[in-house]
Amino acid sequence: MLSGWMEHMIKTISELGRSYLEKPIKKHSLKTIKQICQTLLSRKGEASGTALAKEIVDAFNRMSAKEQWGFLNILTKDFGPDTKAISEAANKFLKTRDFESMRVLASSLDSPRADLIRMINFAPGGIAAIIKMRELVLADLKKDKSFLPLEADLFHLLSSWFNRGFLEFQQINWNTPAAILEKIIAYEAVHEIKDWRALRRRLAEDRSCFAFFHPALHHEPLIFVQVAFTKGIARKIQPLLNEAEIEAYGSQADTAIFYSISNAQTGLKGISFGSFLIKQVVDHISKEMPEIKTYSTLSPIPKFRKWLEKNYMNRKDSVFTEEEKALLGKPDWFGDKDTRKQLKKPLTKVCANYLVLEKKGQLPYDPVTRFHLGNGAEIENINWEADISDHGIEQSFGLMVNYKYTPAHIVSNHESYVNEGKICYSSKVKKLIE
Amino acid sequence: MLSGWMEHMIKTISELGRSYLEKPIKKHSLKTIKQICQTLLSRKGEASGTALAKEIVDAFNRMSAKEQWGFLNILTKDFGPDTKAISEAANKFLKTRDFESMRVLASSLDSPRADLIRMINFAPGGIAAIIKMRELVLADLKKDKSFLPLEADLFHLLSSWFNRGFLEFQQINWNTPAAILEKIIAYEAVHEIKDWRALRRRLAEDRSCFAFFHPALHHEPLIFVQVAFTKGIARKIQPLLNEAEIEAYGSQADTAIFYSISNAQTGLKGISFGSFLIKQVVDHISKEMPEIKTYSTLSPIPKFRKWLEKNYMNRKDSVFTEEEKALLGKPDWFGDKDTRKQLKKPLTKVCANYLVLEKKGQLPYDPVTRFHLGNGAEIENINWEADISDHGIEQSFGLMVNYKYTPAHIVSNHESYVNEGKICYSSKVKKLIE
Amino acid sequence: MLSGWMEHMIKTISELGRSYLEKPIKKHSLKTIKQICQTLLSRKGEASGTALAKEIVDAFNRMSAKEQWGFLNILTKDFGPDTKAISEAANKFLKTRDFESMRVLASSLDSPRADLIRMINFAPGGIAAIIKMRELVLADLKKDKSFLPLEADLFHLLSSWFNRGFLEFQQINWNTPAAILEKIIAYEAVHEIKDWRALRRRLAEDRSCFAFFHPALHHEPLIFVQVAFTKGIARKIQPLLNEAEIEAYGSQADTAIFYSISNAQTGLKGISFGSFLIKQVVDHISKEMPEIKTYSTLSPIPKFRKWLEKNYMNRKDSVFTEEEKALLGKPDWFGDKDTRKQLKKPLTKVCANYLVLEKKGQLPYDPVTRFHLGNGAEIENINWEADISDHGIEQSFGLMVNYKYTPAHIVSNHESYVNEGKICYSSKVKKLIE
Amino acid sequence: MLSGWMEHMIKTISELGRSYLEKPIKKHSLKTIKQICQTLLSRKGEASGTALAKEIVDAFNRMSAKEQWGFLNILTKDFGPDTKAISEAANKFLKTRDFESMRVLASSLDSPRADLIRMINFAPGGIAAIIKMRELVLADLKKDKSFLPLEADLFHLLSSWFNRGFLEFQQINWNTPAAILEKIIAYEAVHEIKDWRALRRRLAEDRSCFAFFHPALHHEPLIFVQVAFTKGIARKIQPLLNEAEIEAYGSQADTAIFYSISNAQTGLKGISFGSFLIKQVVDHISKEMPEIKTYSTLSPIPKFRKWLEKNYMNRKDSVFTEEEKALLGKPDWFGDKDTRKQLKKPLTKVCANYLVLEKKGQLPYDPVTRFHLGNGAEIENINWEADISDHGIEQSFGLMVNYKYTPAHIVSNHESYVNEGKICYSSKVKKLIE
Repeated sequence: MLSGWMEHMIKTISELGRSYLEKPIKKHSLKTIKQICQTLLSRKGEASGTALAKEIVDAFNRMSAKEQWGFLNILTKDFGPDTKAISEAANKFLKTRDFESMRVLASSLDSPRADLIRMINFAPGGIAAIIKMRELVLADLKKDKSFLPLEADLFHLLSSWFNRGFLEFQQINWNTPAAILEKIIAYEAVHEIKDWRALRRRLAEDRSCFAFFHPALHHEPLIFVQVAFTKGIARKIQPLLNEAEIEAYGSQADTAIFYSISNAQTGLKGISFGSFLIKQVVDHISKEMPEIKTYSTLSPIPKFRKWLEKNYMNRKDSVFTEEEKALLGKPDWFGDKDTRKQLKKPLTKVCANYLVLEKKGQLPYDPVTRFHLGNGAEIENINWEADISDHGIEQSFGLMVNYKYTPAHIVSNHESYVNEGKICYSSKVKKLIE
Repeated sequence: MLSGWMEHMIKTISELGRSYLEKPIKKHSLKTIKQICQTLLSRKGEASGTALAKEIVDAFNRMSAKEQWGFLNILTKDFGPDTKAISEAANKFLKTRDFESMRVLASSLDSPRADLIRMINFAPGGIAAIIKMRELVLADLKKDKSFLPLEADLFHLLSSWFNRGFLEFQQINWNTPAAILEKIIAYEAVHEIKDWRALRRRLAEDRSCFAFFHPALHHEPLIFVQVAFTKGIARKIQPLLNEAEIEAYGSQADTAIFYSISNAQTGLKGISFGSFLIKQVVDHISKEMPEIKTYSTLSPIPKFRKWLEKNYMNRKDSVFTEEEKALLGKPDWFGDKDTRKQLKKPLTKVCANYLVLEKKGQLPYDPVTRFHLGNGAEIENINWEADISDHGIEQSFGLMVNYKYTPAHIVSNHESYVNEGKICYSSKVKKLIE
Repeated sequence: MLSGWMEHMIKTISELGRSYLEKPIKKHSLKTIKQICQTLLSRKGEASGTALAKEIVDAFNRMSAKEQWGFLNILTKDFGPDTKAISEAANKFLKTRDFESMRVLASSLDSPRADLIRMINFAPGGIAAIIKMRELVLADLKKDKSFLPLEADLFHLLSSWFNRGFLEFQQINWNTPAAILEKIIAYEAVHEIKDWRALRRRLAEDRSCFAFFHPALHHEPLIFVQVAFTKGIARKIQPLLNEAEIEAYGSQADTAIFYSISNAQTGLKGISFGSFLIKQVVDHISKEMPEIKTYSTLSPIPKFRKWLEKNYMNRKDSVFTEEEKALLGKPDWFGDKDTRKQLKKPLTKVCANYLVLEKKGQLPYDPVTRFHLGNGAEIENINWEADISDHGIEQSFGLMVNYKYTPAHIVSNHESYVNEGKICYSSKVKKLIE
Repeated sequence: MLSGWMEHMIKTISELGRSYLEKPIKKHSLKTIKQICQTLLSRKGEASGTALAKEIVDAFNRMSAKEQWGFLNILTKDFGPDTKAISEAANKFLKTRDFESMRVLASSLDSPRADLIRMINFAPGGIAAIIKMRELVLADLKKDKSFLPLEADLFHLLSSWFNRGFLEFQQINWNTPAAILEKIIAYEAVHEIKDWRALRRRLAEDRSCFAFFHPALHHEPLIFVQVAFTKGIARKIQPLLNEAEIEAYGSQADTAIFYSISNAQTGLKGISFGSFLIKQVVDHISKEMPEIKTYSTLSPIPKFRKWLEKNYMNRKDSVFTEEEKALLGKPDWFGDKDTRKQLKKPLTKVCANYLVLEKKGQLPYDPVTRFHLGNGAEIENINWEADISDHGIEQSFGLMVNYKYTPAHIVSNHESYVNEGKICYSSKVKKLIE
């Protein structure tokens, strides 16, 4: 039977009739929200599913951080699967091992919570709220594991819904709606975009930007990559970021440089689109700009300096002389031209060894290397004084890497990387590690 | 290690490089397709996932019916879950009953086949191929149950992907691309659309049509409803279908008649959109056409005549006199005016009783009644000589029903139907069943 | 001062306020329409210009043919320029010959009628009504010259408005709205499109269709050309029109055949788009389909048979033998294989001479030849049994011509044609006229 | 005959063939440009019209200011009408006074320059270049009248092309392409938009913006109006411009305030769209936002202070006391609260008299008053301390006006204004001028 309140609410929604797209009337308590969730899951919820889902989404969006945590806690605690039913189904399966008992077992494991999230998705804005939920869950999981069951359901559902087959590939340019462009400014994770002026530079005619979108998530890029068209492979990042300088693009550019790739949705962490995006961009450019012959990144080496100072410097097999070690120890040595000159060679050499030989388990130690080699790229070059911003010096003594994507080698590079752990690199890099 | 052929194929795809959007070169054998499926599932498939998925989809689309059956058989037999792993996980869970073992158990139940289908979806046209697979599976299941495990995976994935939150609501009119309109002609299931001329009549200014689409399934309506705007509730279908007659629409129409609702995708059977669509159409019309005050269907009674002749006629409590029974037994009695006159009253009465009182389990016997009452409608009227086509006479002696949707009553009607099994009907209908 | 009626009408429009987009309330007499026209031209019309224009357009669209003629007559008679003012301005100009008096003279010649038409264009649907007016005027001018002044204004304004810079180039395909496609069926002027099925054939993957649109004239193509992609230049039209036969398009097609070009708007006669359209289609295909190397028409010779029978047969220099003349005189000789065989050579020869040497003034006698040579094409070939439909036999004994467009020669061909009257033709054609 | 150079150029264009959309190869001298113009006008230009037009447009866009002046001078001097032909036609007309001679006379007055401009419009970007030409011509005309003939042609053509029937009405919001939004920032003429942040405030949910576009002029608004939705008529501008303050829009707003209207294209000066735009915005809002009942501007009084200080202060009938005159004479008196208090009443009164009674010829002296009264608005209120920016104080002592648009009165207000010179104002304003 319906509680008095619930009757009232359903009556209210009923009277609102078709107007469920309008603004909510009042703020609900967590207890009420839980009741709405239960109604939504019950057969009673069928007629007013979208209206109830809308109540939940609106309520969630207006909750304080503490209330949101409370709501996630309710999802975790009160809408889990029925352990007893699972046990029974498991026992039955162990006896019969037939398809029917397997089906019942699988069904018993599909939690009411997962059903509830599927129905929350009915509401306009539902998917955005669900992504936000996962963002909060992931943040909380760093401290506490209690949201793990909720995370399992969220990951399963979001992975299914953000299947690459549903993503839309779009070029971002100066004709893109401002509502999307402001997201590009906000989400750029590699080289900050200061303001609209800086953004406009990045969308000038010698540049491009490509993104994946999901059709249900309006104006929200999932991931985007920024591309510069240059003559030859770019070896330094500052000229690409410098607002003043616009390379005369035309018959001269022959290379596409992927100089920044950013995941935009924290709540979709671990649901990988990067590899698909890079390949689709290569496809797109090959078709639209036949004059572009070379595809390469200009990538940071985020952990190099920390690794060097913590793990490498004092190794017995370190290639540094004592003098070099002393120079490396000086604060702000990068500001000194002579020191830079002296350290260029050994640092570049160490960096090449770091990228190619240093491992984390079976895989390269550096996460950017793992990503691009996993996609079928090869290490083409290591560039000195490539990112001379404070940040660049801090993370890698200003060194950057070109990972080169050669369409004809992508699959074979990937194969040997995956099967044999082989790191593909150019002859230039080879010389550095010999 | 890769087989020689596989090496060759990966090399070929690799050489094709970015051009995976182009046409396939050759026809693969089922054995080869199976190998491609295995490669796609393996780590080797990561770099060329989309290309391999494309091979499978293209191959499937060019297969003969027999080959397609063979392919579905491979999916069913060779890509099922690992029963041993499930057993182990089930045993472990029964011991610990903790989240981790539950997660492992759930994971063991998620079949390689499901993963494979998820990856087939990467390809352009993947989703259409998967829907086609389910269509074939459902057809085969009528004879043979061996595809049940495949059906379970397909249903689970398609239900997830066709979540109502991802569907796009669109009005269909004469400005709609011809590629969609020809689907409307093809998929219309209730009152056949003879040709483009007839379609144009159905899209004239006193009519409308609304559909759900999925963003990844271009030009394919999932479900659509056809609406006529009339003065008062329409009681007969022929005037609505008659090409010649165009009702002067303007200040006079006050009623929206839903006179045909068709599911377009056989492969999505059981993934229900109808209730959502009707409600969204009511919402849309309320907002755009405030002069429309009444929403009603003009619906067939598909099983009435068969039920009457088979189940009712010879019941002891049958209301028919012997004379009436004799008349009903005559072939083509409907062609005789006097007989029609004589039978009008008893048949209408029996029909009202059929709709309101006849049950299949707890629910109404008539499937159309079940659908609309489950959506919150009420039985408003039973109409004599409402569908005088051969088909109409054959299925229900020409009787049709109006199910009325009153926005303010939808939720409460639905509630009493679901909770108490209460059938809502008008006072006019009430008189007939007394 | 406003007449009572006019006051009433303006009050009504004023009360209608913003709702000038709604339907008109009543039918106006021609006298009333004339008054509305006068009000529109007066300063009083400024505030309600769009509303008054809408009245005129709606009234015009609902007039009978006779009333429309009356309306055009009013435009012609009552809204002409002020002859006295022109005379004064002419006299003044002849005295001063300065810019100011020239300006006044030009202004005196710009008729109130032209201003009125400019303001009628304010209304939604205005441009379509104006095109319809010119269609009626052109039809009437065949009998009677009294509409010449109105025609002069209409031609001047429509030429200005349909400047090529404002036209939109669009590809027509199966995704085009049905409302446009039904116009293609209706307007096709060269080879009739029987029904939607036939249209679909013409939009299959080995075909294309391109059109110019004007942004203010929704869903109305101005001119369109139909293209078939073939292997080598097509020499016969029936295989292109045959519904059953779909050429496997793919790597094989290397030629674009323009097999039909139709002007869609009778009311825009003499405002030429054809040359622009063909060039833009060549541009478009060159860019999108680099495999297409050759561009050619397969064109009718509409006046050949009539010319031959009337002007040529009995010329002294006729090449026909008496036997051939006798054969040509027989009814239905085309049905006889032997006769065809015998006449093939002389007819083809005469046709070549007709196309290349027969003149109307300085220009080729054949209108299709004039059009394509004026665009920079050359006569590539004359094809026997190329259009074996009744119509084809009737107009040209089944002969058709290929006019070839070679991008690199278009300008020079055109130059020598315009300057020296040179007809460009291939060596094959050369042999026929020697 | 073609000059050697021209032959070369046509050959070059011919060889370029279809690629006229690509970038120009070299910079032309003015002499060359003149030759291209002559070729374009000759029959030789037919085949390559678009290509030649493109040469001219590209050349013009890359010219220095001095070269552009030279080009306009060539258009004026070398492509004028044939005075002798006009004289002959004028004489002939004076003799016959028939339509044919009138037609010849009109034709003789249509200058080659006008034809040339029509053909320049064929090129992509042609219309933008032509608008730029008129902008330069108008600027030059302030010093020198020699461009008057060119201006006459440009005005005639642009008036014809920018006929209201061809304009597209669009809402501007945060989903509008950035390329358009940056134009809004650049063209805003009334209340400067500092940066993108400020723009975003102006496009928040309690605001809107509407513009006219021409379909051939991409991403270029012609005119736009900014609207704020408020509770009651806004009396002060600063709260509307203040970035921090966002009015909670919802059930409360009942009024649309047009607080800024800007013409965007200097080159279209005198081709008026403002009246049409305001009426269409009123229409649009009435339909989309039925809760909005009142439409009013909040407008500047640009010439009030200058008029007062120069023309009024020392009039004999000035209402100011000597003390008030002294206060008004003080620099920065607006900064003093007491002075403001003392001057509020007399200044407001004088302002009311200025708006209602001060004339320029038959029309109101104030240009903004002329514009809105000509559109059918009435003077609703005069607001003290309404624009307290430096600019507001400088032009009107901070006073602003509400002009109110009442749909039901627009036509009658306009009529009495146009016919009787009647200024419509509210009773509040009436009190001020008594």
